[in-house]
Amino acid sequence: MAGPITIVTLTTDFGTASPYVAAMKGVLLGVNPGMQLVDLSHHIPPQDVRHTAFFLAAALPYFPPTALHIVVVDPGVGTKRAILYVEVGGCRLLVPDNGCWTALSDAGSPPLVIRLDEARFWRAEVSNTFHGRDIFAPVAGHLSLGVDPQLLGPVITDWTHLPQSTPLRADKSITGEIIFVDHFGNLISNIPATMTADLPPDRRVSLASIGVQRWVRTYGETEAGALIALFSSAGTLEIAEVQGNAARRLGVGVGTEVVVSWD
Amino acid sequence: MAGPITIVTLTTDFGTASPYVAAMKGVLLGVNPGMQLVDLSHHIPPQDVRHTAFFLAAALPYFPPTALHIVVVDPGVGTKRAILYVEVGGCRLLVPDNGCWTALSDAGSPPLVIRLDEARFWRAEVSNTFHGRDIFAPVAGHLSLGVDPQLLGPVITDWTHLPQSTPLRADKSITGEIIFVDHFGNLISNIPATMTADLPPDRRVSLASIGVQRWVRTYGETEAGALIALFSSAGTLEIAEVQGNAARRLGVGVGTEVVVSWD
Amino acid sequence: MAGPITIVTLTTDFGTASPYVAAMKGVLLGVNPGMQLVDLSHHIPPQDVRHTAFFLAAALPYFPPTALHIVVVDPGVGTKRAILYVEVGGCRLLVPDNGCWTALSDAGSPPLVIRLDEARFWRAEVSNTFHGRDIFAPVAGHLSLGVDPQLLGPVITDWTHLPQSTPLRADKSITGEIIFVDHFGNLISNIPATMTADLPPDRRVSLASIGVQRWVRTYGETEAGALIALFSSAGTLEIAEVQGNAARRLGVGVGTEVVVSWD
Repeated sequence: MAGPITIVTLTTDFGTASPYVAAMKGVLLGVNPGMQLVDLSHHIPPQDVRHTAFFLAAALPYFPPTALHIVVVDPGVGTKRAILYVEVGGCRLLVPDNGCWTALSDAGSPPLVIRLDEARFWRAEVSNTFHGRDIFAPVAGHLSLGVDPQLLGPVITDWTHLPQSTPLRADKSITGEIIFVDHFGNLISNIPATMTADLPPDRRVSLASIGVQRWVRTYGETEAGALIALFSSAGTLEIAEVQGNAARRLGVGVGTEVVVSWD
Repeated sequence: MAGPITIVTLTTDFGTASPYVAAMKGVLLGVNPGMQLVDLSHHIPPQDVRHTAFFLAAALPYFPPTALHIVVVDPGVGTKRAILYVEVGGCRLLVPDNGCWTALSDAGSPPLVIRLDEARFWRAEVSNTFHGRDIFAPVAGHLSLGVDPQLLGPVITDWTHLPQSTPLRADKSITGEIIFVDHFGNLISNIPATMTADLPPDRRVSLASIGVQRWVRTYGETEAGALIALFSSAGTLEIAEVQGNAARRLGVGVGTEVVVSWD
Repeated sequence: MAGPITIVTLTTDFGTASPYVAAMKGVLLGVNPGMQLVDLSHHIPPQDVRHTAFFLAAALPYFPPTALHIVVVDPGVGTKRAILYVEVGGCRLLVPDNGCWTALSDAGSPPLVIRLDEARFWRAEVSNTFHGRDIFAPVAGHLSLGVDPQLLGPVITDWTHLPQSTPLRADKSITGEIIFVDHFGNLISNIPATMTADLPPDRRVSLASIGVQRWVRTYGETEAGALIALFSSAGTLEIAEVQGNAARRLGVGVGTEVVVSWD
């Protein structure tokens, strides 16, 4: 993947009341004042690598290849965990080696993964607790100035994979689980639309033994307060409360079992 | 309103822990990597069209005409509600047809309103639940590349109006209501400064039968903790607690009655 | 400090559900549509000047000199408090005269401080409650267009200083305090690494009489749940819970006493 980097995006669990995001932006613009900085999120739940993985898979494929995505959700900061430059499915990332990006890797050719080793692209003094500022940001700055990723360190072929949960299909049912709860309290499962394409029209959805009332196309089709099943914009089965918050109403979250069944 | 669009702003109720804003930014920059993206808010309360209307009316008039404002607070997504391109009072918007923009329309000439119909400017696959990514973002991208708005669909003359509440003036009183609560808990009413210009100096303000202590010019004029009335930066009567949170202290919010009275 | 301003950053306590940040961005881009706008934070706790001071000191030194930093945490808005243009330690700021920037001033040469007096660089109508929109933003716009700061008003030599707390060293102990709680609940003290360099290896840390278990290099060195002391990325002693929230767990915050002691 050649071509210039003109856009640098930021995804962190830093919040914005703390000075960490601001310090990273300072370092980035200090190296390359001409880059276009784009905030993706600073409200990933603290240290939540699974949330990060879903977030990246649902957002990064829409970006042009001129973007470099910095991801700092990094419980292992300062330990021996590596920092990686990754090219996968048309996306370029700087990530801690914690598997947050591996859900992106299904698409076709194998990823290119480089382990950041060359300290000459880092800040002169590297703290033990803030590699976002001291390694990720200056490296991104240099990449955006045209530094060849191959100069950052060795190509590696072994990295941390985040295990992905897979729904199970039985004779009269599919059993999956909630893998993401969005800002509206919508509960997004790991059951893909493709897996339900051939089901009979009487298929039912239940969530932690609670029956869902209707299977619809979109939220506005039903009255406020209805508990519905539909396909999420990520292409998997979603349970939602119309103009409400299903997660709060049902008191469920990531990991809750979802069953689609039919007669 | 001719002239190029160089700035694209985003106002949503998506929050930032979910990948929706990020996906929209990806689509926008995918169509036009050279645009300037500006976040206005991703923390509009979920599905709150009235909050959106106040927000837009208080912010958009300050932008230059080179800005296009994308607004996705859209309880009707996926139903037959239209999506509109609007030129009003020197502002250009892409909005769901839910009235969120009609408070902007007081100023002079009638708005130009176009209903988005031409799917060739949309993403090839349009989901039922995420038109922000699949319609708003690519259309904004194309507009910023110079596509003539008239190509997006037909000009229409009928759209959803959001009813605006109007304060009532009686012999010895004005009765209005709280229409917005800001981040500081300041309570902003619909009573304009112009309506109170000729009142005697002994006019009093009460809110849900609670008397306000002083009518002042600005917060810092009085001691911390005082409950005050003053004119908001939007030009209407506001009730605030100095260095405190009036909404939390009084337990009131949007819709609470405000009375100005005199002898 | 000569040289152009191409980047304008924003640090406020406005939140983003309210239209205040958006209105400021509109005014800024209205004056200079070509500037690069960068959000640092809109979630400074309301009116918290000390939080602002820590935030700025930890972030601004990383920015290039082409940045102008607008800071609007301003409990005194509309009173006689001045608004200042400041050049200090290689940074340029527009700030209310409340001391939020004086922690930046340790580094070498004395700051240049100009009091904003020249209303011709302001909006024509200045409200009593929103100087961010009516003064800070248009002045920043003009500075980014090349206006000489000396035209904004007189150079002054007297301004508000924010008192800084200093740790005390005794024979067998150092006593400091928590000065910042970050997004992760990490408790950052005012005890600099330099002050502890010569301590014996058996030095202990306690916080409000609670003993800290281990003094480590970084979070990931210890098991989840451990209460640790380490050096923060700002270079001072920090108390943290590994993969947890120390502030919530201990119920402590800014002002809590921290003691390092040895035998």
